[in-house]
Amino acid sequence: MLEELTSLKEQLLFQGKFEHQEFKNIVIAGMGGSGIAGSIFAEIFDACPIETVSDYSVPAYVGHDTLFIAISYSGNTEETISAFRDAERKGAQTAAITSGGTLGKICRNSLIISGGLQPRSAIGYMLAPLVSSLIPGSSGDLKEASRAVEKIDSSNAQIKEEAGVLVGEKKLPVIFGFKPFESVAYRWQTQFNENAKMLAFSAYFPELDHNQIMALESSYGRDSLAYYYFSGASGRVRDRIK
Amino acid sequence: MLEELTSLKEQLLFQGKFEHQEFKNIVIAGMGGSGIAGSIFAEIFDACPIETVSDYSVPAYVGHDTLFIAISYSGNTEETISAFRDAERKGAQTAAITSGGTLGKICRNSLIISGGLQPRSAIGYMLAPLVSSLIPGSSGDLKEASRAVEKIDSSNAQIKEEAGVLVGEKKLPVIFGFKPFESVAYRWQTQFNENAKMLAFSAYFPELDHNQIMALESSYGRDSLAYYYFSGASGRVRDRIK
Repeated sequence: MLEELTSLKEQLLFQGKFEHQEFKNIVIAGMGGSGIAGSIFAEIFDACPIETVSDYSVPAYVGHDTLFIAISYSGNTEETISAFRDAERKGAQTAAITSGGTLGKICRNSLIISGGLQPRSAIGYMLAPLVSSLIPGSSGDLKEASRAVEKIDSSNAQIKEEAGVLVGEKKLPVIFGFKPFESVAYRWQTQFNENAKMLAFSAYFPELDHNQIMALESSYGRDSLAYYYFSGASGRVRDRIK
Repeated sequence: MLEELTSLKEQLLFQGKFEHQEFKNIVIAGMGGSGIAGSIFAEIFDACPIETVSDYSVPAYVGHDTLFIAISYSGNTEETISAFRDAERKGAQTAAITSGGTLGKICRNSLIISGGLQPRSAIGYMLAPLVSSLIPGSSGDLKEASRAVEKIDSSNAQIKEEAGVLVGEKKLPVIFGFKPFESVAYRWQTQFNENAKMLAFSAYFPELDHNQIMALESSYGRDSLAYYYFSGASGRVRDRIK
């Protein structure tokens, strides 16, 4: 698993792009480890409306103006295949990112990525083509992201120690995110869920200033939780995290 | 507080509508108790792309094709006022739902609703005008929703007993939703946060089949949590909840 995860830096340099024509809105379907690539992309892309779908169908507005992208690492995720068929029926332009499976067969505009990993370890293969295909001139950003991941890899020892403390004290992690890292916080939660088979939760600033924060000071469960938040919030959001 | 909540059935019959012309996408800004109205609406409305914003700015694509709606019960929420100004700058058609405040003054197309409640108790006043203004022929649905709320009011005793058990056993609630009730599950979470000042979490089917479910069977925190889920899931989603 660790080896799979450390391949992320190479995955981000993956050169594939899928084809597309003009569109006015984007809908991306995907579940779990495959869905998270769409969610992360939706937070960084704001040139047109973009919606992520983790379900069996697509919204009623999907039509000729829509670029629909199905992401399923295995190519066999039932919700995503169902959403793909619904999008085709509604006349959308379609594309897929997959290692093969049924989706690779039924979508003529499939970008085929390397197979053989856990879907959640292949996030770079699913995220990089979204960025390269839809954000012109983004190859420099992907190279920078790859170098940043390399730096994280070198602090493995510290991460292991942190994990040991978490398990030793039997705490449940709660990860606080803020834009554009809400889906990264969610990804972190799901990595706890799937890799460590432990519960975890995520929440978001500044929204949580308006509700969850009221409970954090007094609730009886608070000492059994371990809190993480991202550094790097800017300006007014950082002020309000305190 | 309870009296405020039981006014929901009247709130849903509120007749006000805001003005709008043609548009191709909708962006709704709001935080906490005011933001949840937009999130609930976004789940039931799918005639065009719709995005909710709980932040200081609006996406780059916002422009002449956008109907931007600011929701702030007090009219003084800093994030929402900032997002409103950003949307105006970007050339969007704007509207507001508010009881007054700064927003009531700076937005010429403000729908003024009754003041004096907690924002989280005024959800009907904020949700009903979205439905009436944007979904033609929806007044029958609002009447039906109002009657359904009346039925819930009459089962208060049972709800109180349930709450007593929750507090007695010091459990943290986790609410499982599914479309179109994801934001209702989130609303339920925030009501625990704000009214009872206790932590709570929400999660969603079928997405959680792909991650969180892996943890629910074994994690050490599971016995300190109380689980709630909605009845009424249909077809395949229900099968997979088990």
